[in-house]
Amino acid sequence: MIHIVIAGPRGNMGKEAVKMVMGEETFTLTAVVDRKHDGARLKDVAPDLDADVPVYTNMEECFQKEVCDVLIDLTSPETGKQHMVTAFNYNVRPVVGTTGFTDEDIEELTKTASEKELGAIIAPNFAIGAILLMKFSKQAAKYMTDVEIIEQHHDKKLDAPSGTAIKTAQMIAEVREEKTQGHVDETETLQGARGADFEGMRIHSVRLPGRVAHQEVLFGGQGQTLTLRHDSLDRTSFMPGVKLAVDEVMHLKTLVYGLDQLID
Amino acid sequence: MIHIVIAGPRGNMGKEAVKMVMGEETFTLTAVVDRKHDGARLKDVAPDLDADVPVYTNMEECFQKEVCDVLIDLTSPETGKQHMVTAFNYNVRPVVGTTGFTDEDIEELTKTASEKELGAIIAPNFAIGAILLMKFSKQAAKYMTDVEIIEQHHDKKLDAPSGTAIKTAQMIAEVREEKTQGHVDETETLQGARGADFEGMRIHSVRLPGRVAHQEVLFGGQGQTLTLRHDSLDRTSFMPGVKLAVDEVMHLKTLVYGLDQLID
Amino acid sequence: MIHIVIAGPRGNMGKEAVKMVMGEETFTLTAVVDRKHDGARLKDVAPDLDADVPVYTNMEECFQKEVCDVLIDLTSPETGKQHMVTAFNYNVRPVVGTTGFTDEDIEELTKTASEKELGAIIAPNFAIGAILLMKFSKQAAKYMTDVEIIEQHHDKKLDAPSGTAIKTAQMIAEVREEKTQGHVDETETLQGARGADFEGMRIHSVRLPGRVAHQEVLFGGQGQTLTLRHDSLDRTSFMPGVKLAVDEVMHLKTLVYGLDQLID
Amino acid sequence: MIHIVIAGPRGNMGKEAVKMVMGEETFTLTAVVDRKHDGARLKDVAPDLDADVPVYTNMEECFQKEVCDVLIDLTSPETGKQHMVTAFNYNVRPVVGTTGFTDEDIEELTKTASEKELGAIIAPNFAIGAILLMKFSKQAAKYMTDVEIIEQHHDKKLDAPSGTAIKTAQMIAEVREEKTQGHVDETETLQGARGADFEGMRIHSVRLPGRVAHQEVLFGGQGQTLTLRHDSLDRTSFMPGVKLAVDEVMHLKTLVYGLDQLID
Repeated sequence: MIHIVIAGPRGNMGKEAVKMVMGEETFTLTAVVDRKHDGARLKDVAPDLDADVPVYTNMEECFQKEVCDVLIDLTSPETGKQHMVTAFNYNVRPVVGTTGFTDEDIEELTKTASEKELGAIIAPNFAIGAILLMKFSKQAAKYMTDVEIIEQHHDKKLDAPSGTAIKTAQMIAEVREEKTQGHVDETETLQGARGADFEGMRIHSVRLPGRVAHQEVLFGGQGQTLTLRHDSLDRTSFMPGVKLAVDEVMHLKTLVYGLDQLID
Repeated sequence: MIHIVIAGPRGNMGKEAVKMVMGEETFTLTAVVDRKHDGARLKDVAPDLDADVPVYTNMEECFQKEVCDVLIDLTSPETGKQHMVTAFNYNVRPVVGTTGFTDEDIEELTKTASEKELGAIIAPNFAIGAILLMKFSKQAAKYMTDVEIIEQHHDKKLDAPSGTAIKTAQMIAEVREEKTQGHVDETETLQGARGADFEGMRIHSVRLPGRVAHQEVLFGGQGQTLTLRHDSLDRTSFMPGVKLAVDEVMHLKTLVYGLDQLID
Repeated sequence: MIHIVIAGPRGNMGKEAVKMVMGEETFTLTAVVDRKHDGARLKDVAPDLDADVPVYTNMEECFQKEVCDVLIDLTSPETGKQHMVTAFNYNVRPVVGTTGFTDEDIEELTKTASEKELGAIIAPNFAIGAILLMKFSKQAAKYMTDVEIIEQHHDKKLDAPSGTAIKTAQMIAEVREEKTQGHVDETETLQGARGADFEGMRIHSVRLPGRVAHQEVLFGGQGQTLTLRHDSLDRTSFMPGVKLAVDEVMHLKTLVYGLDQLID
Repeated sequence: MIHIVIAGPRGNMGKEAVKMVMGEETFTLTAVVDRKHDGARLKDVAPDLDADVPVYTNMEECFQKEVCDVLIDLTSPETGKQHMVTAFNYNVRPVVGTTGFTDEDIEELTKTASEKELGAIIAPNFAIGAILLMKFSKQAAKYMTDVEIIEQHHDKKLDAPSGTAIKTAQMIAEVREEKTQGHVDETETLQGARGADFEGMRIHSVRLPGRVAHQEVLFGGQGQTLTLRHDSLDRTSFMPGVKLAVDEVMHLKTLVYGLDQLID
């Protein structure tokens, strides 16, 4: 049985994590850490969760009073780092879903984890399908070097391309021989038709009501194409990744950055 | 039995048309009109066709000597118009696959066809699937007004977007309430990501080896999307459209522009 | 301004309809008809709706006391018919979303509507994208007669194929020349690989977690394919169809069965 | 420079291989081995190839007279094995594209290759995209265990499912926890709708004119799906795989079965 504390239990991700942990036979939720409601029971401050566990606002106090193997941290980037340090101090293994760590942060935290021989995971993305998509894209790009990415999102999204599309392109660029794609004399009769250029690859962003979050990576070769596609409907898609991280962090003796490092 | 003359029999489209006409039970190929080889048999100048019919370089002479109900004209834009006039003079019904007619050309040719009560068809595109796609897109846009087009072609194509994509967008724009799509504050962190703008719709052009000619029109609505897609592999895809045009032109008493006018 | 009463306001569809009607400038929600809570205000019995309108359990009483142009009925099949009769008696135009009417029911209700010159709509499906898909499929099948349907749903669905897939195949069969598809000597080395047979067409049902409700109709022709696809995420996708029905029913003078009859 | 002999140069695959080898700067075509035309020049017996190299009917004689590092064998299964033995005798590295080798054949040939420290490759499939698809499918199935395969081919294909679909399902089954998918009470109202069953996975075979060879593997998970798709248009799609095999066989010191073994 793995004893788990969740920080940020009333956010969108946090709520799903509470449900996931409570639904797994080998997991036990012992407490939650929240910004407020110190001393309450979670079920009283989040009626839709039906979780009869204590709420702490002070993480140190929580670790002193409760049994805890793993901290699932789904708070903001600023607090994530401090929570990791606290967890290390109490020999709790952190699984952190926030982004925004600097290279120096990660280096420092990795040093601490290794010295303590304590597992830790920072995962910017918990959607296993998306991680597999990125991993496979990097593998495929070694053999099929003409690549275009089409990502589709709902029309409330502000930025284009999506962060996942850029991350995917970066991972591909690490192994792909740089080249400009398309005909050397190709012209756009309408500006932007050929999409955004990322080291010669093209990225296209579709924004439509009725879409949620979708990404296709297309590899073209002589007489053939390979297409890898991920469709994400909602935050429940992250939970198998969180579960995997909790299971894996128990066997690690250092910090691992990115769920893709755990997938072979 | 419909007696047919084909102009331009040795071009890519022409060759397919010769095979199609010879393969239909209700069609008879009586002769071909070519730029050269006057007096030869087609099978001798195009060994892969096995068509034992006479070759003429003079269309008037052809119509004087041969039985002909329908002229299938697959030559260049310049000669297409003159061929239509000649066909009208000999009461032959023309089916013309070339583009480049001006509005005045079409007006004038329509007047002649109507006076003579003679059927005639000018079809910029014979691919029935593509025509259905455009027709359906126009219908759908009345009810689902958020539209994006993704067209994919081989990487030897010079222009982006494709002519068919622009034509499709124009047909949609005729019925669609003009609106700017996407979030009002959306920004491109990489220029061109959101594709080309056509009256607020977005068009994306993918160019990859291994692709031939493909077009998707995506309609987004609250909680749903409708996607219409056409994939074209080669010129044989045009032949059912040519056959339809020949069958239909026999019943017409004027000129029809666009195969979509024949499809209900 | 169109004054609307909704029957079944606390069901899944009903709740969305309440929100939709309240959000439209040209619609006014005057009351709701429910199985219980007579005399209450809707906002008190359905706190998530924030709709300050009276609840009636007796439809006649509702029509006597409230201004009402259109009844949106989202109750069960059994009550739908009786509600339509009551609406006709009070010169209210019904828009009914339940299925299960017999041919005789529809004949009788149509007779009444025509005599009273009163618009009425029975719509088994309000998803405009799905209706367009079926309509276009019927049109396309005249010209491309090789058809396969792939429908994908979540893995909690009990029946295969889906009702929409069968309905689509039926609509196609009305216009398609019956033919057996595939090679005359084709064999299944694993039984069921070629899917279900519907008058020579093939239907394939995919059931996977992560899917919601999706349907593709594929038309194959020489050198080309045409694919029509509808993706549905949730019940909000029905609301544009309900809105369209309310707008159209005001102009009708008889009963119309099926939203596809309203779409040109 | 790698000196290459091609066996079976006038078959469909052979012709493409001749063109590919002649087009690569680091490859030289030194001769071909054919069933007939001994002593001729290839360009005289295959005018479309423009390859001025000698034709041999006796492979031993060819290896005695010509410089040869690699034999590309695209003949029938029966002759492939004998050609490999002959190649080993002359220290030529064979790249063989035929299937039909027994486990014993492979064991024996591997022993010979290892003893001679000579590279050799037998590849049942040279399409790199298809090999990547199978490899990725096997990887993904560890993490997403609900799988369905949809393969689409032209309507002249006799067997369903395709060999590639079955091979893919077998590779997935090696790592996937066996489970029956779909709802435990699901029923087919039309027989075959749910496709073929392969250890609980479902395989669907579409046959349509206008399709060539396409395969999709769909992985479903909570709130997400991952789709891997390969589209193959023609035999030119095999050539990058043949090229890769020739490059790799030069570095091998034993026999490798399957191109997937060379891809990391």
